[in-house]
Amino acid sequence: MVDVQAYLDAQREKDLDKLFEFLRIPSVSALSQHKRDMLRAAEWLVRELEELGMQNVRKIDAGGHPIVYAERIEDPALPTALIYGHYDVQPVDPEALWTTPPFEPNIRNGRIYARGASDDKGQVFMHMRALKAHLATRGRLPLNVRLVIEGEEEVGSESLARYVESAPELKADVVVISDTSMPAIDAPAICYSLRGIAVLEMTVRGAASDLHSGLFGGAVPNPLHELARLVASLHDDAGRVNVPGFYDDVLPLTAEERAMLARLPFDEEEYKASLGLKELYGEAGYTTIERIGARPTLELNGMWGGFQGEGSKTVIPAEAHAKITCRLVPDQDPEKIADLVASALAERAHPSVTVDVRRGHGGAPWICSPDDPAIQAGMRALEQAFAASPLLMRMGGSIPVVGNLDRVLRAPIVLMGFALPTDQVHAPDENFSLQAFDKGSLALALYWDELARALA
Amino acid sequence: MVDVQAYLDAQREKDLDKLFEFLRIPSVSALSQHKRDMLRAAEWLVRELEELGMQNVRKIDAGGHPIVYAERIEDPALPTALIYGHYDVQPVDPEALWTTPPFEPNIRNGRIYARGASDDKGQVFMHMRALKAHLATRGRLPLNVRLVIEGEEEVGSESLARYVESAPELKADVVVISDTSMPAIDAPAICYSLRGIAVLEMTVRGAASDLHSGLFGGAVPNPLHELARLVASLHDDAGRVNVPGFYDDVLPLTAEERAMLARLPFDEEEYKASLGLKELYGEAGYTTIERIGARPTLELNGMWGGFQGEGSKTVIPAEAHAKITCRLVPDQDPEKIADLVASALAERAHPSVTVDVRRGHGGAPWICSPDDPAIQAGMRALEQAFAASPLLMRMGGSIPVVGNLDRVLRAPIVLMGFALPTDQVHAPDENFSLQAFDKGSLALALYWDELARALA
Repeated sequence: MVDVQAYLDAQREKDLDKLFEFLRIPSVSALSQHKRDMLRAAEWLVRELEELGMQNVRKIDAGGHPIVYAERIEDPALPTALIYGHYDVQPVDPEALWTTPPFEPNIRNGRIYARGASDDKGQVFMHMRALKAHLATRGRLPLNVRLVIEGEEEVGSESLARYVESAPELKADVVVISDTSMPAIDAPAICYSLRGIAVLEMTVRGAASDLHSGLFGGAVPNPLHELARLVASLHDDAGRVNVPGFYDDVLPLTAEERAMLARLPFDEEEYKASLGLKELYGEAGYTTIERIGARPTLELNGMWGGFQGEGSKTVIPAEAHAKITCRLVPDQDPEKIADLVASALAERAHPSVTVDVRRGHGGAPWICSPDDPAIQAGMRALEQAFAASPLLMRMGGSIPVVGNLDRVLRAPIVLMGFALPTDQVHAPDENFSLQAFDKGSLALALYWDELARALA
Repeated sequence: MVDVQAYLDAQREKDLDKLFEFLRIPSVSALSQHKRDMLRAAEWLVRELEELGMQNVRKIDAGGHPIVYAERIEDPALPTALIYGHYDVQPVDPEALWTTPPFEPNIRNGRIYARGASDDKGQVFMHMRALKAHLATRGRLPLNVRLVIEGEEEVGSESLARYVESAPELKADVVVISDTSMPAIDAPAICYSLRGIAVLEMTVRGAASDLHSGLFGGAVPNPLHELARLVASLHDDAGRVNVPGFYDDVLPLTAEERAMLARLPFDEEEYKASLGLKELYGEAGYTTIERIGARPTLELNGMWGGFQGEGSKTVIPAEAHAKITCRLVPDQDPEKIADLVASALAERAHPSVTVDVRRGHGGAPWICSPDDPAIQAGMRALEQAFAASPLLMRMGGSIPVVGNLDRVLRAPIVLMGFALPTDQVHAPDENFSLQAFDKGSLALALYWDELARALA
């Protein structure tokens, strides 16, 4: 594949200039004042995709910021891959903490600094480079490719979710997404599982109004005590979630998978130091990597009630609140888990208080067999491009669109992402390693050949 | 004592007009825009006290709003009583909830409606009526009386605390305070015990910054979980405070006192209904009245950490916080109790987090023997004025100045207050019953004769 690699090398400076154009557009989906910038970014993509040789390129209006669609159907008999990415970025505040302005991309110490450099404009652009390398050097792609680049990933992908449900043009044999990370620059990886999520909010109510803790304390229920007791009851001393049935549908890790995960690079001391922790904490019997990727959790994300100001106010509040999310692993079902947690809380509540549990959104966990030919093809492409043994990993987060695509397309999804843990994604000084940019672009170009062969 | 009663009856309309003058002054100590009104209220008191025949009347500057002092030393050989009260009032907001403006006193349904009508201007004024009745009908008081009316009770009594420490003129054989309540208009009462207080604030710290609960959840300590676990550990299933040594210094209730407290009027169904509670909750083995007045508590007044906004934010916060107050009973010591709670929390903390406990202010509990002649004299005065058997009660709240006066003067303190549970103290539509105003004024007038006889 020297043709493709040589082309990428030759085009590098020009391509970086192009990427910088893309990064200069402040496509912040969450802020209405950037609505025009969102359109500009979508139109920039349309122009570039047309120029590099994609067909049927268009903006799709699914209710929110435009979705950019492009395809190149070389031959209906060939397999078809669907590339998903997003052109929207996170807000930049606190902007004062950026070393250089977030929408003025520049290179320092071998990294591209800009909002979106890593998440996900940089990686979307790498896909475009790889497609262009094929088309420029050979005039064709080794398979059919569709591209869907949305503008609402950072705000919930609502329009995309609607679009995916009813878009016949999305039919594909493989989905490829570059929006995840790898452990290190010499440790390229494919992520084959994501956790799902179940969201709950709990309110404990006592008396009809706040009470004076001197005049009533000791004689009436205190919703803060009851909330704390209920929350504390949700875990046992071994760090397990103490909700009957919670683990019933969890696919156990096989010995092989545990061995594979144990090979992922992980330095516990470095991890603790980077987080400022004296000690880690989690479910007994599992490693940190297993706890994050392969075990479900129940986490409080917020808890509040009563007086939070300076000094002291002797009040027994009428209400106390907690926000809870469960991260789920295959084959847990978000609705079933939310029901189990809500039931456990209702059963455990003291009769002197009322406990109200509301359900938020849910998202199914996702897993793809690491043996899938589409993933194995990716491993070969990574190995060639990075000259290192690629890894297979699970991620603890959730990518809702993966769940949508999985359910609708029923195709393998290959999460081949190139972000590094140092990329400061969603934070000031977001950056993207030039090595990841170079090797990742090559890996994606090589992937189309590997995939075409694997699916032939 | 028909002379005094007849005088009070005859003067009633004129006295209500005077009281309304006092109530019209918006003496809100907490708000700096009322600084001049505080001065006006103090000057009003000085004028009225001089007019009714008190001597050595003056404003004392102890750093904050003026303290009003007055005395009438009939004969140095006679016993001396010190009357304490306060002329400052709580803020009025939300003012929109008042049926009539808070500083436009008026009478409806047998009640005086105005901020301060019950707490404490109305009760201060009843003391003035009683003194005037003696002086107008007999030309003298049956004992020596000193009056201290402060202007910072609602903001912490800081100036008064300083003044009490170093004011030789405060020497007295009995302290009388009318700033408490009675169970019902036909159930006059003297309060012989107040709870003390120990204030703590706890912070649980995990990682150095907030973490994504998908990417880290399950592998790192969550300060919200740990806070909940620690808080839950502070009570056992029987509603007792689960801190070693917490009850060591508690004076047990005697069988006699329990029998006496059991005679206080209390309707549990009505109490629950008034609070909007399905069920009460408290320490097993004690009645509600005992739980509030005679048993110590540990209450959370506030608890917070993480995301409290609308929707969901998948964060593991770096910190979680709780505000705690313990209400103490004789002979518990605030510093010792704060130490015990702090030690228990430190011992129970998981090594993966840091637990920081800060101490706030403390206040000692207070008790006076119900057999004290000064209290028994008060019981006789109440019985005559109200034509009802008076009661002896404990109160669950704290009145810091009582602790100061007790420590400095080492004299019995008689808490003979006339507020009713329906007075809406500190709330919109504060009011004071005309029956309490009439009978209470008479009781205070009769008290001076009873007290003089008892101490003769």
